[in-house]
Amino acid sequence: MKTLEEIGKSAKAAEPVLRIMGTNQKNEALLHVAEKLLEEKAFVLAENVKDVEKATANGMAQGMIDRLMLDDNRIEGMAEGIRQVAALPDPVGEVTSMKQRPNGLMIGWKKVPLGVIGMIYESRPNVTADAFALCFKAGNVVILRGGSDAFFSNSAITKVIRAALTDVKIPEDAVQLIEDTRRETVQEFMKMNQYVDVLIPRGGAGLIRNVVENSRIPVIETGTGNCHIFVDESADFDMAIDIIFNAKTQRIGVCNACESLVLHEKIVDAFLPQLKKRLDEKQVEMRGDEKACSAAEGLVPATEEDWGREYLDYILSVKTVKNIDEAIAHINRYNTGHSEAIVTKDYANAQKFLNEIDAAAVYVNASTRFTDGFEFGFGAEIGISTQKLHARGPMGLDALTSGKYIIYGNGQIR
Amino acid sequence: MKTLEEIGKSAKAAEPVLRIMGTNQKNEALLHVAEKLLEEKAFVLAENVKDVEKATANGMAQGMIDRLMLDDNRIEGMAEGIRQVAALPDPVGEVTSMKQRPNGLMIGWKKVPLGVIGMIYESRPNVTADAFALCFKAGNVVILRGGSDAFFSNSAITKVIRAALTDVKIPEDAVQLIEDTRRETVQEFMKMNQYVDVLIPRGGAGLIRNVVENSRIPVIETGTGNCHIFVDESADFDMAIDIIFNAKTQRIGVCNACESLVLHEKIVDAFLPQLKKRLDEKQVEMRGDEKACSAAEGLVPATEEDWGREYLDYILSVKTVKNIDEAIAHINRYNTGHSEAIVTKDYANAQKFLNEIDAAAVYVNASTRFTDGFEFGFGAEIGISTQKLHARGPMGLDALTSGKYIIYGNGQIR
Repeated sequence: MKTLEEIGKSAKAAEPVLRIMGTNQKNEALLHVAEKLLEEKAFVLAENVKDVEKATANGMAQGMIDRLMLDDNRIEGMAEGIRQVAALPDPVGEVTSMKQRPNGLMIGWKKVPLGVIGMIYESRPNVTADAFALCFKAGNVVILRGGSDAFFSNSAITKVIRAALTDVKIPEDAVQLIEDTRRETVQEFMKMNQYVDVLIPRGGAGLIRNVVENSRIPVIETGTGNCHIFVDESADFDMAIDIIFNAKTQRIGVCNACESLVLHEKIVDAFLPQLKKRLDEKQVEMRGDEKACSAAEGLVPATEEDWGREYLDYILSVKTVKNIDEAIAHINRYNTGHSEAIVTKDYANAQKFLNEIDAAAVYVNASTRFTDGFEFGFGAEIGISTQKLHARGPMGLDALTSGKYIIYGNGQIR
Repeated sequence: MKTLEEIGKSAKAAEPVLRIMGTNQKNEALLHVAEKLLEEKAFVLAENVKDVEKATANGMAQGMIDRLMLDDNRIEGMAEGIRQVAALPDPVGEVTSMKQRPNGLMIGWKKVPLGVIGMIYESRPNVTADAFALCFKAGNVVILRGGSDAFFSNSAITKVIRAALTDVKIPEDAVQLIEDTRRETVQEFMKMNQYVDVLIPRGGAGLIRNVVENSRIPVIETGTGNCHIFVDESADFDMAIDIIFNAKTQRIGVCNACESLVLHEKIVDAFLPQLKKRLDEKQVEMRGDEKACSAAEGLVPATEEDWGREYLDYILSVKTVKNIDEAIAHINRYNTGHSEAIVTKDYANAQKFLNEIDAAAVYVNASTRFTDGFEFGFGAEIGISTQKLHARGPMGLDALTSGKYIIYGNGQIR
């Protein structure tokens, strides 16, 4: 087993090769990796069984085991995902501007890979294939640190990818998995800023906080979403109810699901009973402030703590406000910078909400569930940034690039 | 004196006001600040005298005292700098793309302020006015932590700016100075990621390293420049000599000055004596490898340590290489990701160098001294980023913004 230091050095050694690799070569490699994953299906599934057996013995909840388990379909899904990344346009090499200065210098900005990307994740083993494909397509080396529950699966998938890269004469160290699953290893990995250019954590709030607080490597924060929908006085009730029902219940465990409702107090009495009826179809628990609780039967009183909660469950908090300013102030105070929506017919309020809400994605009359790289048309997603530096919102291949200035001169001096 | 916690809270309180402030209001405020600085010249100069007296008593070197000292001209320069920032286009609010998705959603990307910016700097007191003006113009609140040597000057300048902001009814906490000059305070400040969105250190390598290693706030690394010039076999000697002379001697203490020369071994014997003669005009010490030392009289043998040095002095290291590949490998190994140049007549080598060198600015046939926000046409500069995340190379107002997705819908759900 390689030490972290050796992993870092191997990544740095592979970096220059990937940095200048052409698009055709990268695409051919990705297609070969996809093919190899299918060829080695039996091996990957056999390794996955070890993880599943261990998880079962440890009493892991059935929902979690379902996420962990691979089958023919899921491996085919992984391969198809890799083929889709191969089909995406390569962001690297694009010169997005080229201007001539008065002294004749031609100064351009060219997209280049970031370098070495570290991914720390807890989720399903398919993230291993996914993260590799995206990082690789953008010319980056990736060092993966998956959850220990998926250890055998992640190892197997990485092994197959590395063998496929070797087949096509690309350094296998373009992808490496940290196989030392001790907690201290993650802490040590986060200090390796001499080898790693950026760290992208994907997982629960605890993981993200640990990385943000302890990393010496620049971090792109992803994922936590306490998303609000504000129903304005002028909202179309049917539209508002459809949007809230969709954003709350279409998929509850995701970061772009709605967690909190903000209601204009003038409509609360008329609107809330209708909404409650619809949400009852999915047994959504509503936790309201005083006005909300008295507007409809069956709400639970909310506590201060509820306004900041990302439930990821069939629960919705309900806050009433006097006007749009109070709504914006409430949302800007409690949101996590992810996705926020207003439902309104009022032009000025729509514009005001778009301007003043501080979040990665701000919606008028649409569900927050659209905050997603595929829905935004990026063709891929490595995560959703909830910070303001480098990338904000859904991150596609572009977010995995940096740039450099290229300058054509003919002897200019200062 | 406010505690750090109070400073952070005050900054966060001012942030929403600046986030949505219009361009006209920001420009008028900047012009008023410039005017007020001139009005209060006597006060600022009197406070500056205290710093200069203290520095003299402590035996500070004359060069450093010169940098610290203010006079009428320098204060007028500060005011003029602020007026220039007022005249620049406001990056905030620009929607750089707006596309329609198949489901009818209109998704746009709009530039917004970063939020609260922390600046830690060692340099001259004019950075105080400069940093305020740039951050403010891009709609950001700024928390300043200047060097303790310039304490009275920085305090006075900040006081004047805050009074000017109050005059025009803008929260004075748009700019705050950390007046607690103890070292521990900086360390504590760097942990305040709940209040500060990005930290920009400006100063020597030691300061930058401390910030990068200890900050919990995302950092934009600036400044260190071990810049190379590679003279290819086909180079025009006169052009190469002019460029090297300019890049090495026009200003030695800056990060875009040339520190290291890389020479194609086929031209070293003919080229080096001519170059040496020109650099002798400024008594530049040359430290060469074996081949370089034997090609011209008066070179000092270089040690391994020289290849990684940023001298900021009349010293230049000289490395000979067999070909462009060796030159690129050497530069990518020892550079600091700042500015690198090739002098060549060869088309393929020019393109290869631009492609393969990993740095913020890569030049063909021009001096590295052009890496600068003003020379690049940004009209301003907050620093030069030598990292790959968020901003790379000279940072103008654009680098002080983030963005958000704004989405216009008409009831879309997933």
